[in-house]
Amino acid sequence: MEIYKDYLNKIKTAMAADIKSALQYSYFDGMNEYLQKGYDIGAFLTEAKENKLLPSLQTFVAEMGLRPNYNHKLGSHPDFTHLKHSDQIEKHYITSMFIDIKNSTNLFKRYIPETVLIITNTIQRAAIHTCLIFGGYIQRLHGDGLFVYFGGKGESSKDATERALKAGSIFSYFIKNDLKNLFNEQGVETIFTRMGIDYGKNEDVVWAMAGMGEISEVTTCSLHTSLASKMQGYSESNGIVVGDNVKDLVDLDYFTPVSRRTGNENDRYIFQILEENLNYTQYDFDWLSYLKQQDFIATDLEGNLQFKRKQAVQQISENIKPIAERSTPYLR
Amino acid sequence: MEIYKDYLNKIKTAMAADIKSALQYSYFDGMNEYLQKGYDIGAFLTEAKENKLLPSLQTFVAEMGLRPNYNHKLGSHPDFTHLKHSDQIEKHYITSMFIDIKNSTNLFKRYIPETVLIITNTIQRAAIHTCLIFGGYIQRLHGDGLFVYFGGKGESSKDATERALKAGSIFSYFIKNDLKNLFNEQGVETIFTRMGIDYGKNEDVVWAMAGMGEISEVTTCSLHTSLASKMQGYSESNGIVVGDNVKDLVDLDYFTPVSRRTGNENDRYIFQILEENLNYTQYDFDWLSYLKQQDFIATDLEGNLQFKRKQAVQQISENIKPIAERSTPYLR
Repeated sequence: MEIYKDYLNKIKTAMAADIKSALQYSYFDGMNEYLQKGYDIGAFLTEAKENKLLPSLQTFVAEMGLRPNYNHKLGSHPDFTHLKHSDQIEKHYITSMFIDIKNSTNLFKRYIPETVLIITNTIQRAAIHTCLIFGGYIQRLHGDGLFVYFGGKGESSKDATERALKAGSIFSYFIKNDLKNLFNEQGVETIFTRMGIDYGKNEDVVWAMAGMGEISEVTTCSLHTSLASKMQGYSESNGIVVGDNVKDLVDLDYFTPVSRRTGNENDRYIFQILEENLNYTQYDFDWLSYLKQQDFIATDLEGNLQFKRKQAVQQISENIKPIAERSTPYLR
Repeated sequence: MEIYKDYLNKIKTAMAADIKSALQYSYFDGMNEYLQKGYDIGAFLTEAKENKLLPSLQTFVAEMGLRPNYNHKLGSHPDFTHLKHSDQIEKHYITSMFIDIKNSTNLFKRYIPETVLIITNTIQRAAIHTCLIFGGYIQRLHGDGLFVYFGGKGESSKDATERALKAGSIFSYFIKNDLKNLFNEQGVETIFTRMGIDYGKNEDVVWAMAGMGEISEVTTCSLHTSLASKMQGYSESNGIVVGDNVKDLVDLDYFTPVSRRTGNENDRYIFQILEENLNYTQYDFDWLSYLKQQDFIATDLEGNLQFKRKQAVQQISENIKPIAERSTPYLR
């Protein structure tokens, strides 16, 4: 998708500049050689100081009229920061999302660590940025994956959960298509995601400080945060698995029990308490169909999804209504 | 082991005070009822503000003459903090240790979230404290697990890696024995650990900032950090798996290839680059035998390991040498 173009280019440039790959797997201990090839790791890291999206994604944000807050702090949801070094707990709903990026270890087979750093950090930044623009709060960076909260005080839980689904869907599309194409071109084993998302209600989520002193974070203790993390492990490659609570809350048609995919009835419930007759189902989320239904997404002639500019949408409705009525997709 | 007594008691008290468990699984939405039962979650969280070990572990530290630094900050190894918001990288060896605590989701079957919080946070604190006293730097809290670095500038890599092995061994013993006994008593499904440890050499480890703005940490990009995380997944319950580099560095006799346990030759190498003839073996670490060889550990008459006080050791050598020569273990 066009909106990730600049992320993809960064990865492509780093791959092309890699000395190990260039010299057909001969081994170099090579920062100097590396820099001679011209990739500027310093510039890459300088970008990270600034809280800026890359231009292609910035376009999306501007067109969508989103107002992401880039001034968050890792592991510190702003609505619960006051619990750090406090003896209080709070109960408040949250949607927890775990994004795991698998298979990146194999990058070390082909590239020097500096290149791997740029590739994995760029993918991670794309994930961070995607979650931020949909209002997520980054709780933790996990290697190249992440753990993100959606929702908070004064936010509708339904809206927050749908934003999590949107962020997950768009990022999955990026990994499954754009990034995969690039990796295939380069003859590198592809990377894939696994995601788990679950929603815990007010009464089921305890917010409190974990750890000690400054070796600590404000986090949730909740069955549904734990289940989101577990469900990630049940997802297929580039899949998203969600819990019963998510299905009930967002009330959409894109969910099928995981057991239907695996053919194993044991995979239906991610959690059961027999004494309480609690059977908690996990579902595969059909994020591709969901994405295709979004008004900001169009399918181009090759079947690829593209971001539909608002401008185009407006033009459709204002200037060229007759064409729009024939449902021609307008792409950038 | 006596040194974890106060951690264990805290968990025991929280379990006993739990309203859900007490009422035979009837469901209460219950902070008020909970507090009436007398467990003081506020006091528990207050303790976390202070960087203090619980007394039983403090005794160990004092006797061993250890001088842990409790003023670390999560995700901020003090030797590399200057890389945050910098455009620089550094190459420096590190030993990475991943501790995963499995099966804790089942605690929600039996206990209200507040009790689960106290149980899991106490286990996590015991892990943090154990790593800190052996000189570890806590990089990340993962639910109830953690990711810890050992080593740094001016530290011997061999010594740092041995300290990681010691921390991992003692904590594994706590979970596999003390905690398991308590869980069995309470009829709760046991929790277990899985650990992975690997050592990356100076030339193979890149330190740099990951993320963006304050949604960031200073971390390593290294094959061996990635492998430590992967090896965790290959460990048996309460097991520790280490990489070739660890075995070579510490030069001890407690390592057998994972493939010998699993009977599957595919499990021998955790990573291979065929073109470079690189075959990186993963090993089960026999932490129990290693622990028994430590001069601060004694085996009591029931076969349980205990901390051997230095005082006792000194007494042995100074005052009651004849008895000591008959190898009678001296326990607290």
